[in-house]
Amino acid sequence: MAVKINPHVSVDCVIFGFNDMSLKVLLIDRNQGLPLLRQTAPKSLKLPGRLVYDDEDVDTAAVRVLKELTGLENIYLQQFNVFGSPDRLNKKEDLEWLQSLTKMKINRVVTIAYYSLIKLNQSLPCDGKVIWANVMKVPKLAFDHNEIIKRGLLNLRRELKNEPIAFELLPKKFTIRQLQSVYENILDKKLDNRNFRKGIAKWDYITQVNEKEKNVAHKPAQYFKFDKRKYIKQQIDYLLDK
Amino acid sequence: MAVKINPHVSVDCVIFGFNDMSLKVLLIDRNQGLPLLRQTAPKSLKLPGRLVYDDEDVDTAAVRVLKELTGLENIYLQQFNVFGSPDRLNKKEDLEWLQSLTKMKINRVVTIAYYSLIKLNQSLPCDGKVIWANVMKVPKLAFDHNEIIKRGLLNLRRELKNEPIAFELLPKKFTIRQLQSVYENILDKKLDNRNFRKGIAKWDYITQVNEKEKNVAHKPAQYFKFDKRKYIKQQIDYLLDK
Repeated sequence: MAVKINPHVSVDCVIFGFNDMSLKVLLIDRNQGLPLLRQTAPKSLKLPGRLVYDDEDVDTAAVRVLKELTGLENIYLQQFNVFGSPDRLNKKEDLEWLQSLTKMKINRVVTIAYYSLIKLNQSLPCDGKVIWANVMKVPKLAFDHNEIIKRGLLNLRRELKNEPIAFELLPKKFTIRQLQSVYENILDKKLDNRNFRKGIAKWDYITQVNEKEKNVAHKPAQYFKFDKRKYIKQQIDYLLDK
Repeated sequence: MAVKINPHVSVDCVIFGFNDMSLKVLLIDRNQGLPLLRQTAPKSLKLPGRLVYDDEDVDTAAVRVLKELTGLENIYLQQFNVFGSPDRLNKKEDLEWLQSLTKMKINRVVTIAYYSLIKLNQSLPCDGKVIWANVMKVPKLAFDHNEIIKRGLLNLRRELKNEPIAFELLPKKFTIRQLQSVYENILDKKLDNRNFRKGIAKWDYITQVNEKEKNVAHKPAQYFKFDKRKYIKQQIDYLLDK
């Protein structure tokens, strides 16, 4: 009847970054800065993640680990899935790295995955320490981190459908072409211009600004803005507030 | 540097049930069927949950535990949050119960919470074994289970906004009054009839059926149905499919 169970618990962070051109994901080299490992070890990329401390809440651990490993802070991290297959440490090199890092005998790690989406066109404190890989061209990573990113991306796409996150990646005034580019990059799909405009036309929380693009080679495009108040009114919540 | 960490990992299931009248949540009595505990122990209610086995994926554990403890199966369980505060076992009676059940020394349990929403107007295999408590009148539960239900409910309300789950709780043909009742019960709020109808009028995936209520004391109400194809077309996905 008694069940011998002592998996370790870790957190892993999937940080998506958008830079107007493409959707990227933040990776670190697990061999960098570890003097105990061979200096000649080749790059071995993974998500920023570590075990949770004894006396630490899991959400606190995610914030701590992201800061320690990348320098990033004040980022809204959201849990999206737990990866708890007993086979997660099947690869010999993953298990060796983990035991060398932690000095513990480890058989199993259940990891809680967090994600976030940030704008990359500001200078980030983690520049230089980390690798931003194109989401569609992520190399083979340690553990099941490719799978974690894949699930994180599905989550982000669902969020793009349900929440107005696209507008957080755009300037206050934006063109329909810019908005379409956010959708195309996150969905990894070329969208038909005409259908996109037809679809967008129904979103009456996107309103025209009395201004057009300037100094462009092509025909200047109209600027739009996101009307957050109008958006909120359209949500079911508005049924409650009156 | 080395971190001594061996929390145990459990799963807990928040099963919401809707029965036309109210929203309920499934609880079990942790003292029932445990001969080792005092037979005179008073009822002590909690969510169905147990530790994850050594060789078991966490999602598999959730399905197993729900079936073992309640008889319920073939229910779509979705992870919604991990509760990992180091203080979760602070109450003496919770720790004692857990150690008596598992015969293990336990300091900390990180639990993965799953949820589901089911219709209660069919005879369920778990009848008799479990308690369905009104979500708004849940008594004091073991561990942090009141908090877990609260978070599960927030999650359900977000889902109600983003996904067409209300229609899964209704018959194929339904009146606007019935639809409003689903929203009122899940949101725990009386909605203004006129505003609700105004809001619903914009959802053109709810279409009129050529039929009215029969044999009712009041003025017979119009029946409507949910047009799933139309709904899907309205989602952003439809931008992709043409």
